[in-house]
Amino acid sequence: MARTSTSRERILQATEMLLREGGLAAAGIKQVVGVSGAPIGSVYHYFPGGKEQMVIETLQRHGQKARDLLGAAFAGDRPLPEQIRELFSTAAREFDRMGGTKSCAIGNVTLDLGRGEEALRGTCCACFDSWVHALEPLLPWPDERRRRSFAEMLIVALEGAFVLARAQGSGSPFVTAGEWLAGLLGQPSQALPTRRKRSRK
Amino acid sequence: MARTSTSRERILQATEMLLREGGLAAAGIKQVVGVSGAPIGSVYHYFPGGKEQMVIETLQRHGQKARDLLGAAFAGDRPLPEQIRELFSTAAREFDRMGGTKSCAIGNVTLDLGRGEEALRGTCCACFDSWVHALEPLLPWPDERRRRSFAEMLIVALEGAFVLARAQGSGSPFVTAGEWLAGLLGQPSQALPTRRKRSRK
Repeated sequence: MARTSTSRERILQATEMLLREGGLAAAGIKQVVGVSGAPIGSVYHYFPGGKEQMVIETLQRHGQKARDLLGAAFAGDRPLPEQIRELFSTAAREFDRMGGTKSCAIGNVTLDLGRGEEALRGTCCACFDSWVHALEPLLPWPDERRRRSFAEMLIVALEGAFVLARAQGSGSPFVTAGEWLAGLLGQPSQALPTRRKRSRK
Repeated sequence: MARTSTSRERILQATEMLLREGGLAAAGIKQVVGVSGAPIGSVYHYFPGGKEQMVIETLQRHGQKARDLLGAAFAGDRPLPEQIRELFSTAAREFDRMGGTKSCAIGNVTLDLGRGEEALRGTCCACFDSWVHALEPLLPWPDERRRRSFAEMLIVALEGAFVLARAQGSGSPFVTAGEWLAGLLGQPSQALPTRRKRSRK
């Protein structure tokens, strides 16, 4: 039992790594079997829906991990510009540490979607939405529409930074994006929402 | 002669459309032949280097077109926030007009790069760099490093907006990004560069 659950785990980990490197085409069942070492029968045992099911479950897991990281980045009482800078500079360091060849599994799949891959598109969309929903209540402004909009801007910037970082083979676009977005928050009130008062000890 | 040059053109157009839809895996020679109607022999005639050469030439052309559009968006004397809003809202409209299924060929290929695809990575990187170089002198601040950094931020935001727009099947993430970046420019001077004085009639 422990052994079979390890097989499933290895399959999901291999799929995630392959999706993060080369997108949808890189995560064929043959490649997943090769990387995971799991027998092909166990792929179909755990994922009777084949590649689509395997990819969807991987994306959901990847999406959940990212959501937890995003939530943790904006928890606590530090000033928002500091939290933003740290989120993006951590992303830059992590990108470089992983060799500059791995981006977001969800972004990678999104840009590979063919016609008719509606279940995959829906999964990617639900992941991004869940990140926006996780971030939105953590932003310190009274206007919910503004909070949602800035949360979406943060995700846009993270996904775009992955694109430029992959092209450059360097995490520095994350740092650039983090600096500008953190800078946004020194804005005059007519352009940006007033900050919600926070109770501090 | 006119006829063969039309074949080459049709091949490049088909490759571009396929890359914009489904990335690198979608633009195989077989698919390009199918979409373009060009005989397979003419693909190898015009692109003796095969798929890699065909994709690289397509990306360079796509990159040049985008560079021209970006340059045009920031030419002229309108206030920068207005130019930014218009660039992003035009991108949103264009995205929707094309059916919500086509993103940037260069971004799509970048997120599909496998190990050893160094020529492709170099092409993608050179395209993004050329956009930053085209935008940088058009930005109205004295500090070159700041201009380059904001030009990179604009590209990050455009590429990231493509990702979220593809997932949502709607251009609205472009509008969100344009609003926030335009808002950036109302910043106090310690956080953002002073605007360069422009001579106006």
